[in-house]
Amino acid sequence: MESVENQDHLVVSSEANHPANLIPELCSLFYTLGWVTGTGELVYIAPSGVQKERILPKDLFVMDRSSLKLLRSPNPPIKPSACTPLFFNAYNMRNSGACIHSHSQNAVLATMVFDKEFTISHQEMIKGIKRDGTDTYLSFFDTLVVPIIENTALEQDLTSSMAQAMKDYPESCAVLVRNHGVYVWGETWQKAKTMSECYDYLFELAVKIRAMRINQN
Amino acid sequence: MESVENQDHLVVSSEANHPANLIPELCSLFYTLGWVTGTGELVYIAPSGVQKERILPKDLFVMDRSSLKLLRSPNPPIKPSACTPLFFNAYNMRNSGACIHSHSQNAVLATMVFDKEFTISHQEMIKGIKRDGTDTYLSFFDTLVVPIIENTALEQDLTSSMAQAMKDYPESCAVLVRNHGVYVWGETWQKAKTMSECYDYLFELAVKIRAMRINQN
Amino acid sequence: MESVENQDHLVVSSEANHPANLIPELCSLFYTLGWVTGTGELVYIAPSGVQKERILPKDLFVMDRSSLKLLRSPNPPIKPSACTPLFFNAYNMRNSGACIHSHSQNAVLATMVFDKEFTISHQEMIKGIKRDGTDTYLSFFDTLVVPIIENTALEQDLTSSMAQAMKDYPESCAVLVRNHGVYVWGETWQKAKTMSECYDYLFELAVKIRAMRINQN
Amino acid sequence: MESVENQDHLVVSSEANHPANLIPELCSLFYTLGWVTGTGELVYIAPSGVQKERILPKDLFVMDRSSLKLLRSPNPPIKPSACTPLFFNAYNMRNSGACIHSHSQNAVLATMVFDKEFTISHQEMIKGIKRDGTDTYLSFFDTLVVPIIENTALEQDLTSSMAQAMKDYPESCAVLVRNHGVYVWGETWQKAKTMSECYDYLFELAVKIRAMRINQN
Repeated sequence: MESVENQDHLVVSSEANHPANLIPELCSLFYTLGWVTGTGELVYIAPSGVQKERILPKDLFVMDRSSLKLLRSPNPPIKPSACTPLFFNAYNMRNSGACIHSHSQNAVLATMVFDKEFTISHQEMIKGIKRDGTDTYLSFFDTLVVPIIENTALEQDLTSSMAQAMKDYPESCAVLVRNHGVYVWGETWQKAKTMSECYDYLFELAVKIRAMRINQN
Repeated sequence: MESVENQDHLVVSSEANHPANLIPELCSLFYTLGWVTGTGELVYIAPSGVQKERILPKDLFVMDRSSLKLLRSPNPPIKPSACTPLFFNAYNMRNSGACIHSHSQNAVLATMVFDKEFTISHQEMIKGIKRDGTDTYLSFFDTLVVPIIENTALEQDLTSSMAQAMKDYPESCAVLVRNHGVYVWGETWQKAKTMSECYDYLFELAVKIRAMRINQN
Repeated sequence: MESVENQDHLVVSSEANHPANLIPELCSLFYTLGWVTGTGELVYIAPSGVQKERILPKDLFVMDRSSLKLLRSPNPPIKPSACTPLFFNAYNMRNSGACIHSHSQNAVLATMVFDKEFTISHQEMIKGIKRDGTDTYLSFFDTLVVPIIENTALEQDLTSSMAQAMKDYPESCAVLVRNHGVYVWGETWQKAKTMSECYDYLFELAVKIRAMRINQN
Repeated sequence: MESVENQDHLVVSSEANHPANLIPELCSLFYTLGWVTGTGELVYIAPSGVQKERILPKDLFVMDRSSLKLLRSPNPPIKPSACTPLFFNAYNMRNSGACIHSHSQNAVLATMVFDKEFTISHQEMIKGIKRDGTDTYLSFFDTLVVPIIENTALEQDLTSSMAQAMKDYPESCAVLVRNHGVYVWGETWQKAKTMSECYDYLFELAVKIRAMRINQN
């Protein structure tokens, strides 16, 4: 049986868009985001407790998607992100290829000014959000709805309420967690990243609209 | 007949200010901006659906200005920006050399606190804005006026209302689109970029003034 | 007796995480932060009055932790940060390995909207803060408390009131100073930096919550 | 008589802190700042109408401090900054070595919420501001006062009212211009830059305090 430590070739690639190079770059670029992405049967997971701007390919975990077996761990061992089971909700329930977790203050404040659902309409950026499970995107005149679930003491305890929200909102590509942040997923890392940016833009805008007491028709 | 794919030399230049190098740099620098610029008869267009910080010269479209024929497309094919017809308003109606589209939240919030026109006066930055079709710039005591048009479901459907606003406001170098963003144009990419920065500064300032309920005389 | 000027080898290392390389990088990255960190018996101190984005290894002071003797000074001589005695509070009273001082406006505004203590609860980021002197971190349902001390004309005069606050709040890893900023410490530079980021995030969030008049239950 | 175009050696230096290298770097770093600084008898002036992040040493003007003769101009000719006569106020009336002009929105908003004078007290950052013409800095308990002058249509027309404000406030190292920005000067570029950062921090803080309606005692 091959040891986990000998699988370093899984995190070595000269291609800039290989997950092993991409995750460190994106973590560094956006600083506070957690990222999971994969290629086919392999899932790459960012570590927990490492300075986000300093993550290296060698700090990543690699997991087998179907068996959930950890194929490769960083050495010395560090913990995989506590939100790993939540990422697998996106993988398993929606067949997505990448999932992003953020503690963005825009997302957190949005959960503080909305109740069970975040909603916004009549904004151009809404058009950047897909109806999950379909090939269509929202239109300018649609209302974007994102379910908000309550936070729990342990991140893994969010797994079932996140799954429930995903069942209740089958077209949503995101779930907000009250006073915590947001999970966004997509078929590819590019779609997950673009949608994550659109969602964050809309959370920020909605919070500013509330802060300025702008009336919307 | 030469195929579109063989025109790659149009996007290869060792000059930093060549549109093929400039557009990727500016997209990366400002992140959310869309850019179109050209040299004489050639127009360079940024792609849609590509991560703005990752655009490369090879991702650009090149169009013939008078025939509107696409001379060069990225390979594999991606879509040219949906706002291409809007950019051509600026090229054809104003003889501009560059047009910039932004989803800046400052522009969007400005359209939410103003009605048919954005106006501001008595600000030094106003002096950075040209009276289009003339050789003069606005003075500190002038009032800057930017028309606001209503958004539509499809970006190309804005073409005629943008054209109408450009006829109604012949000296404006910009058109705001409600809950969407702004288009700014200029004779050269330098003027388009500088004016875009001035407009955005003024949108941001006007929004802050409203947010703080500052009284202006 | 060896002269202070001959100890330059103390600030020369090819390791990126050596304090002599780390402090300049972190000062440049965060711009306004003051940093002190060390390795075992040596303490490295950032200079005062040097442009934070321009600090070089050769600008650092090195001090013996137990004797407080200055082993190495920059040449030409510049002043060590006035908050050096405050940093030693963290070293001596808490056995910490690094201490960070920031003039962050989030921290300053937090001291203006709270009275004797900054408090926040029900925020995911709270989980990034350790109970000092223990091996446990705060949970989502705990209330984070940070003592606020009054500022003095001279920074060194804060030493005793900071020490008193540290006695009164034995689990706190930070002390806020009214209209001035915050001190954060940790066992390692990594923990001090991560907690500094969590505290600042929470100060910023609390200030925004107050600014938006959001009701919390 | 030597032509102005042959004086290019004045803007060539391998020293990072030479004004010819420093001004482009600082313009790029802070983006919107205008800078003038010099060495002894030579004064280096940033150009107007050039993208701030793209200024090169070859774009700078060099002027003789006593004769005000332009020793070197960029080729092709561009305009020196319109605020050149204002910079000379700082050189001639205060014997300063560098002067910085900024259109910072913090400065502009500060002029909109204060009347004839900007004032702030009980802030640690005040200690970064010098009493001009003396060797002392403000203390935490002092009140920082910055005169505000009215803007004019042409920047050079500010020269006399700026000079008058400098006579009326002999210890101020800055003059605010209503709805325009701020001028800050110092003995060296380092002091001008550090004080410019402190002033801007205090303008920003004062504006936030007003925006949040925080009561100060």
